[in-house]
Amino acid sequence: MTTSRTVVLASRPAGVPQSFNFAIAERPLVAPTAGKVQVRNLYLSVEPAMRGWVSATANYSDPVAIGDVMRSLAVGQVTDTGHPDFQVGDLLLGWFGWQEWATVDAAQVVRRIRETDLPSSLALGVLGLNGVTAWLALDTIGHPGVGQTIVVSTAAGSVGSAAGQLAKVKGARTIGIAGGPEKVAQCLDLFGFDAAIDYRNEDVGTRLAEVAPEGVDIYFDNTAGPISDAVVPHLNVAARVIVCGTASVAKWDPAPLGPRVERHLLTKRATMTGFLFFDHLDRLEEAVADLAAHVRAGSVVYREDLLDGIDQCADAIAGLYRGENMGKRIIRLPADKEQQ
Amino acid sequence: MTTSRTVVLASRPAGVPQSFNFAIAERPLVAPTAGKVQVRNLYLSVEPAMRGWVSATANYSDPVAIGDVMRSLAVGQVTDTGHPDFQVGDLLLGWFGWQEWATVDAAQVVRRIRETDLPSSLALGVLGLNGVTAWLALDTIGHPGVGQTIVVSTAAGSVGSAAGQLAKVKGARTIGIAGGPEKVAQCLDLFGFDAAIDYRNEDVGTRLAEVAPEGVDIYFDNTAGPISDAVVPHLNVAARVIVCGTASVAKWDPAPLGPRVERHLLTKRATMTGFLFFDHLDRLEEAVADLAAHVRAGSVVYREDLLDGIDQCADAIAGLYRGENMGKRIIRLPADKEQQ
Repeated sequence: MTTSRTVVLASRPAGVPQSFNFAIAERPLVAPTAGKVQVRNLYLSVEPAMRGWVSATANYSDPVAIGDVMRSLAVGQVTDTGHPDFQVGDLLLGWFGWQEWATVDAAQVVRRIRETDLPSSLALGVLGLNGVTAWLALDTIGHPGVGQTIVVSTAAGSVGSAAGQLAKVKGARTIGIAGGPEKVAQCLDLFGFDAAIDYRNEDVGTRLAEVAPEGVDIYFDNTAGPISDAVVPHLNVAARVIVCGTASVAKWDPAPLGPRVERHLLTKRATMTGFLFFDHLDRLEEAVADLAAHVRAGSVVYREDLLDGIDQCADAIAGLYRGENMGKRIIRLPADKEQQ
Repeated sequence: MTTSRTVVLASRPAGVPQSFNFAIAERPLVAPTAGKVQVRNLYLSVEPAMRGWVSATANYSDPVAIGDVMRSLAVGQVTDTGHPDFQVGDLLLGWFGWQEWATVDAAQVVRRIRETDLPSSLALGVLGLNGVTAWLALDTIGHPGVGQTIVVSTAAGSVGSAAGQLAKVKGARTIGIAGGPEKVAQCLDLFGFDAAIDYRNEDVGTRLAEVAPEGVDIYFDNTAGPISDAVVPHLNVAARVIVCGTASVAKWDPAPLGPRVERHLLTKRATMTGFLFFDHLDRLEEAVADLAAHVRAGSVVYREDLLDGIDQCADAIAGLYRGENMGKRIIRLPADKEQQ
């Protein structure tokens, strides 16, 4: 193979990126010069956060330019190396983009995958950005413990399910919010939440009053929007709201209106804090090691939603926002089976 | 004198309490039994927070009951004592209510006023709830320092002016927001803010972009509402919003709508935290001692808005919300001049 199929951003989305915002381009393979590494991608990640990465409005990173390869974490195997730290055959997690092959600076490598007894795709999910986000957000902001109640939105998702299970390990009572009976059943039966609320078919506020009569100490918020509006009035004194995602809000420019939160925060001396894992990369290996131990012990389980082939990328983000995935959405490239 | 004039809550206000929500009642003086103390009030406090204290909706304290004396901090001088810790003549700060005389449990005493070289009315303002709130909120949440920019709303008020001056002492750049040219001039000339914005006559967002081109690290929010909406988009990474008051919002039941803040908090990894001084009473003397030292040194100045006589109480809260006071609003009772 001398070319790499690449998913490029073809146009700037208005809101959630749709399949027509992307195009496939055939690009030549590039040999790595000194300090660079060439990988063949095995797994590509699909994240709700990608909506922000392709948005023109101010965000925590520069927007992906039109015509550029779509930014993405990926698991890749080293095929050629110009850097002494990386050998051919190494499995790496890095910012390798939605493409079959990538030649990148070593700085784009996030980590070498050491937990080779576990599937390497986990580096994109429960042992990757998603699990690590849950782990670090709970460790730095949430502080779950015995006697505390945590509510998690998108509780059947890859961040939410990890957050619920990690909080339960710490002794907290866990309440999941998810969309539809199937996801609610998954929260209860697979991820072990103590209670689960179907926001599509139940009134979240009414149900919360039933399942959390003593209030909410931690709200792990992956949605914002009406789900949060229903949770915030149940916050206890000194509650912590982790603002980790805004999946329920399609457009932020301008910001949509919602009930003001200041009075709840003031009277409850509660805190709302935005969390991005980027700020805590120095603790990445600590988080992955603890998560991997929980995966091996069965105290943290996960679910993957594997889509085969790079052609699946273009519609994959929109599909997340349609709520069609059950578990961490990952694009599996055929190189996986050939090389492993 | 054998009776005490008392301001009682006559009806439950809808929003900001108005003069017709209060009535004057003549009550007999009560001798203190064991464990109690009788004081003659010298100064009664008037707080924006009183709106919440008389509201029927859930709050951080039980609402004042209809027919009860209006809850208030006051400076009183001990006239009779059933408690060994308090002697006749002592000046006390306590929850003595809007009345000429009070006989209360020792638990209602907040502190003995030790800084007798300074006017005792300061115990209701810069050395009382207002200054202490500013001091503790900056110490526990704001963390102002060199190279940081703080924005303070109601900057000419008693909390805001103390917050701005204390932050400046720590080396921060201070920007005040106040209503009208007179208050803006006071921010600049009396309280030493580096810049001040008149929210009634200027566009807060536009002016902030001019005076804080490098963004806002701390927002000391005493207003909520449209002023906050204009400040939040200017928050820097890791910014802290201290939610200390909601003076611009007349009714919270139901919560009014405003632009959602989650996206700003997330992308800036910023935090919004409610603050009430009640939670930090163990640090009261530390805060008062530091504030008193700043007052003596001239690094924290204050302004009082003294109204004479208990008849001024009924309209005093409404007047705060009309923005008519310049400085901490205090009701001075005639006993002051007679006894000091």
